[in-house]
Amino acid sequence: MNAEILSVGTELLLGHVVNTDTAYVARALSSIGINVHYTATVGDNPQRLQRAVEESLSRCDLLVTTGGLGPTEDDLTKETVARAAGVPLAMNETCLQELLRYFAGRYCGENQKKQAVLPVGCTVLKNDCGSAPGCLFRSRQGALVVMLPGPPGELIPMLENYALPALAGQQEKAVILSRNLRVFGLGEGLTAEKLEDLLRGSNPTAATYALDNECFVRVTARAAQESEALAMMQPLMEKIRARLGNYLYTEEYASLEETVVQGLMRQKKTLATAESCTGGLLSQRLTAISGSSEIFEMGAVTYANRIKEQVLGVCSQTLREKGAVSYETACQMAQGIRQKAGSDLGIGITGIAGPGGGTPEKPVGRVYIALSDGAHTWVRCMPGGIGRTRSRAFYRQAASSHALDMVRRYLTGLPVLEDLEFPRAAGIPVSSPCPQKEKNS
Amino acid sequence: MNAEILSVGTELLLGHVVNTDTAYVARALSSIGINVHYTATVGDNPQRLQRAVEESLSRCDLLVTTGGLGPTEDDLTKETVARAAGVPLAMNETCLQELLRYFAGRYCGENQKKQAVLPVGCTVLKNDCGSAPGCLFRSRQGALVVMLPGPPGELIPMLENYALPALAGQQEKAVILSRNLRVFGLGEGLTAEKLEDLLRGSNPTAATYALDNECFVRVTARAAQESEALAMMQPLMEKIRARLGNYLYTEEYASLEETVVQGLMRQKKTLATAESCTGGLLSQRLTAISGSSEIFEMGAVTYANRIKEQVLGVCSQTLREKGAVSYETACQMAQGIRQKAGSDLGIGITGIAGPGGGTPEKPVGRVYIALSDGAHTWVRCMPGGIGRTRSRAFYRQAASSHALDMVRRYLTGLPVLEDLEFPRAAGIPVSSPCPQKEKNS
Repeated sequence: MNAEILSVGTELLLGHVVNTDTAYVARALSSIGINVHYTATVGDNPQRLQRAVEESLSRCDLLVTTGGLGPTEDDLTKETVARAAGVPLAMNETCLQELLRYFAGRYCGENQKKQAVLPVGCTVLKNDCGSAPGCLFRSRQGALVVMLPGPPGELIPMLENYALPALAGQQEKAVILSRNLRVFGLGEGLTAEKLEDLLRGSNPTAATYALDNECFVRVTARAAQESEALAMMQPLMEKIRARLGNYLYTEEYASLEETVVQGLMRQKKTLATAESCTGGLLSQRLTAISGSSEIFEMGAVTYANRIKEQVLGVCSQTLREKGAVSYETACQMAQGIRQKAGSDLGIGITGIAGPGGGTPEKPVGRVYIALSDGAHTWVRCMPGGIGRTRSRAFYRQAASSHALDMVRRYLTGLPVLEDLEFPRAAGIPVSSPCPQKEKNS
Repeated sequence: MNAEILSVGTELLLGHVVNTDTAYVARALSSIGINVHYTATVGDNPQRLQRAVEESLSRCDLLVTTGGLGPTEDDLTKETVARAAGVPLAMNETCLQELLRYFAGRYCGENQKKQAVLPVGCTVLKNDCGSAPGCLFRSRQGALVVMLPGPPGELIPMLENYALPALAGQQEKAVILSRNLRVFGLGEGLTAEKLEDLLRGSNPTAATYALDNECFVRVTARAAQESEALAMMQPLMEKIRARLGNYLYTEEYASLEETVVQGLMRQKKTLATAESCTGGLLSQRLTAISGSSEIFEMGAVTYANRIKEQVLGVCSQTLREKGAVSYETACQMAQGIRQKAGSDLGIGITGIAGPGGGTPEKPVGRVYIALSDGAHTWVRCMPGGIGRTRSRAFYRQAASSHALDMVRRYLTGLPVLEDLEFPRAAGIPVSSPCPQKEKNS
């Protein structure tokens, strides 16, 4: 089954909102064996929308639209798509009752009720997280049409819980199975170089992708059944694992933070964080994972030196002589927060995320990341000042990822200060274990 | 001039990478008065790419392609686009010399050299941040074609420094000007209802958009000059301002956090945060803004009750009798962090972000958000348990946005506990000022 995805919305077309729906839908469709050949975006303009829908319906088996189902006047997707697909619309009484329940106790205007108007004879796709239902129906041209709401928080559950099961029933049995082998500490270029000859297959395939200071290798196979696809992938995955070694941290759709939270939960270890330049990004990433309250004791965002001394017990002499952005301060932050929180592990991050604040000795991008378990403290250094200067968001994300990678390596018994590509390139030695300093609590 | 944007790359089509290039190019084009009517993505498949290019060239004045200019085997954009546009390719000697300089001291293979092959007679667009040059040329069909590289770090400088100036010279003088009026505390539905009659104009236009627990109204005008477009927008914007009142928080491309950081900087006031369920999301949003170190003193992420007592001085009796998720605990967290940090303002957030941990009295989504200035403490309550349960990420984002909105209202002298749509709908009274409680520091 060949599919196209059409996103509707002037805000997407003008570039004021980045379209993440298309990527999500494409990935979901391929997971049930549906090929996406083409995706497009049109604004809230009925003529251009109608032409785009007609073109799509003339060449694809499945058209998925996103956006334009809401109550506002520019939400014209339903009317226009139904017209292009040659299917009439009517008020769906079941949906209307559902909608009135949704608005129970609140005002439900006429524009809200319009959301229950749907193509006659369609399969209704429930919206568990909003008011506008979606639908699935067959166009006069013969292609299936699925209409989904635009907000990702509504689209994702509707797609996963209702649209995909309905579509899976409609198509010939074929499965496209993918596994993501996620890598931290090697760039995409170096990863691709290590795997060069393995990236040329056709079924299964392997391809590298860059992603937020990380990269991943996707292995994909297509077969009649999942077990068959999996068997086709195994030998290739084995080779990739062997070449990437410790840099490979998971083979699931799990992030670095999920991997770390799960690891801590399994080992019943707790963590506390002291952050300067990352400003709470690390604690936020950890606590975004449900259940993290079991393993996360405390986070401190200590911007001012005064607070570093007072809350974390960093020596005023260290701050004066070595500076707030130093190997020694990072060590003491990790040790201090661990003591303060009474946790098994402590992390300290201090650095210069920019755009201001850099000096020749400590350029923008210089960040020290320390991990302490009480007996030992390890420090990684992101050198900064190499190649082009990156954004504040980049350095913050990278530093928090390094911290997570250090915990991951600690928990799995790997060397915490692995010879990473990044510090090595800097010509700055990767930091060795820090001398322990006992603090007055 | 009507434009289309065509992105090339199987990684985009499969949804493994989110396409941010299109949004950037669309915004840049509209800033010089070029309308984008349609955007699309195709994979690295020459037949489908050629058909998409031919369709575009038959209906637009300008086609911008992104991606597929690099040295790897699947980079086929140039060959295919040139064929569809009826223009031959040839090795560009100047570009080749440039490329050899770029690779100075490194190996430059034949596949690398292919990057200097360009449409005959094109304007070369320099790549200051990578190896593959872009180009601008006129197709046999009469439309202009601009080809840009895919990586945003290469695309953005090429677009800004070379492509936009070249395009600006090609077109009739016209400017599309947009202003975003950002709203917190009213949903998109209610906002659209208040503005209903104002959303029907054609030039200027106004339209509403939902965005991460907020919404915004975009006002757009098209004219020969910026000043003229601005003059056309003013009366409409005045009417919108009058109807939205306090819910409108900025008219710039500024987020709630930027608005708050700028407000604090202007008034030379400092802030400290104590977060439970948001886990550092609020401090992270604040410190993502460059310069926030001037106004942000300290953040504490206090998950465990023990830490709430120890670090923030929350009464153990309060925690025992009222619970960690309570009006009183939020108050004491805000007051406690303010004292601890010695800041002008303190924020406390405590709640149940889910998916676990809810009870009939305190359902998932219940969050208390307190702001203290030493003299007064105000508390907002997100009730939870109304309508359908939303994601952990949703409640965390909403709670941190409420905190920012409270600070914004405080700084501009507005009532901090405005009668928001959200708590009112809950039937739970919006909290009144909290009795002050002095703590032993």
